[in-house]
Amino acid sequence: MPQEFTQFASQCRARVDNVLDQYLPLAQDPTQLRAAMRYSLFNGGKRVRPILAYAAALAIKPGINLNLIDPIAASLECLHSYSLVHDDLPAMDDDDLRRGKPTCHIAFTEATAILAGDGLQTLAFDLLTTTDLPAATQIKLVRQLAQGSGVDGMVLGQAIDLAAVDHQLNLAQLETMHRHKTGALIRASVAMGAISAGADDKQLAALDNYASAIGLAFQVQDDILDVTGDTTTLGKQQGADIARNKPTYVSLLGLDAAKTKADELHRQALGALGMFDESAAPLRQLASYIVQRSN
Amino acid sequence: MPQEFTQFASQCRARVDNVLDQYLPLAQDPTQLRAAMRYSLFNGGKRVRPILAYAAALAIKPGINLNLIDPIAASLECLHSYSLVHDDLPAMDDDDLRRGKPTCHIAFTEATAILAGDGLQTLAFDLLTTTDLPAATQIKLVRQLAQGSGVDGMVLGQAIDLAAVDHQLNLAQLETMHRHKTGALIRASVAMGAISAGADDKQLAALDNYASAIGLAFQVQDDILDVTGDTTTLGKQQGADIARNKPTYVSLLGLDAAKTKADELHRQALGALGMFDESAAPLRQLASYIVQRSN
Repeated sequence: MPQEFTQFASQCRARVDNVLDQYLPLAQDPTQLRAAMRYSLFNGGKRVRPILAYAAALAIKPGINLNLIDPIAASLECLHSYSLVHDDLPAMDDDDLRRGKPTCHIAFTEATAILAGDGLQTLAFDLLTTTDLPAATQIKLVRQLAQGSGVDGMVLGQAIDLAAVDHQLNLAQLETMHRHKTGALIRASVAMGAISAGADDKQLAALDNYASAIGLAFQVQDDILDVTGDTTTLGKQQGADIARNKPTYVSLLGLDAAKTKADELHRQALGALGMFDESAAPLRQLASYIVQRSN
Repeated sequence: MPQEFTQFASQCRARVDNVLDQYLPLAQDPTQLRAAMRYSLFNGGKRVRPILAYAAALAIKPGINLNLIDPIAASLECLHSYSLVHDDLPAMDDDDLRRGKPTCHIAFTEATAILAGDGLQTLAFDLLTTTDLPAATQIKLVRQLAQGSGVDGMVLGQAIDLAAVDHQLNLAQLETMHRHKTGALIRASVAMGAISAGADDKQLAALDNYASAIGLAFQVQDDILDVTGDTTTLGKQQGADIARNKPTYVSLLGLDAAKTKADELHRQALGALGMFDESAAPLRQLASYIVQRSN
């Protein structure tokens, strides 16, 4: 990764962590609810969705005050974090390890993990009401987040994923699952950053193509890492998806074709940014990061 | 109940059911996610929160077009319904029966119930973006809902409730739990109806006193019904809270003093409505309904 991007990503992570820390302080709470929420938020996440929101805003309006985007970035991370906490639950994927640490329901209790996830989702919407953007823009953001994460988006994707365990999916079905499960929120992240910076419809359409491509690329790379990564770097059991008999790009296409697919999606993402100048450099670098990352 | 109120409540229920049915149609969905969400929404609920929102709006602006309130009413019911689905889960209250029917995780699967609850919460926020109200008002509604249902509201209440099982709570602690677990969303329901109708701060403060009192009255009556009701009418096991060793108003105060407490809260609620004329009749009747209901 170019050093420039590493610095940009670190800066984004510091910003979003700061907002999350301020908006969800560890108040006195005998129930451990806040502790569980914070545990799940501050767990070494890559903050891909926040970075996407910042980068998209900068692509539209290079000099934008990033304070405007901070609550949106934090909101996206809360939403993402809630989805991980619930996905890890015994009744769902039943994962004990996330980013190298015990999952929320292992570190706390199952009930606390359910409630922490619930509270994180609520917090995601709450945060969207704290920006200094015009109310009409704020409502658009609420709508984007709800549509990306709801019954036609992320939640549906997780339901498709669960229904797919021990079933054969073809490539089209696998793609439908991922477009909902991870793609919808990634598209919302880019759209929300761009809308906050005043993007027009043409710009939004181009960025949506970009987001669709990297959303899928992200997942293909995840499937590749499930096979080629090592448990320590991944922070989760290598080979877990294969062992669980979950369909993956690698199981359907083979490793080489999966790598080719990731490269194609990477090119497609860069192609979608054709109308943008140097202001879209962080988005371009992020696309590269997504297919080159090792965890 | 006066026939007038019965009719008003029926009209409100029909309105909210219609919005929910239209906004969450039973589309083709092999995952059963939508089916589980609809199952939980259309399960014979009393629709108290929607009725509160309509009644509060009418108290502020007697001739208001109730179409403006419909999405808010539906939103409140989605939020409430999600909380019930998650509360009933095995890791939480582990209830098999809700309103006389199998709970969501029994009728479907535990994973589907978790996701259905998640999707219902998202839908609640989504619906708030569909009103014909000014964007600034819509954002206020999002904020009210988030604050009432989040980590300082309903979700915290549920966490306190879980932590209280097998522990002795005193009356103040029990009240704190209920003020969060059910009170916060009931207050939000009243506030959201009133805000939509353009309430001023003085009106909001009076209505909030009303809502606090009936929120607690609702809970006291629940505890009374847990002892005096019968399983068929209640739609859940009579005596379940006592059996589970949960602290209740009846277990702490005794049955007679609990009844006196409900009456006091009823009077307090009516007193808070002193500044309102006949336009607040539905709110007054609702307060009576809450302490006189048998299920």
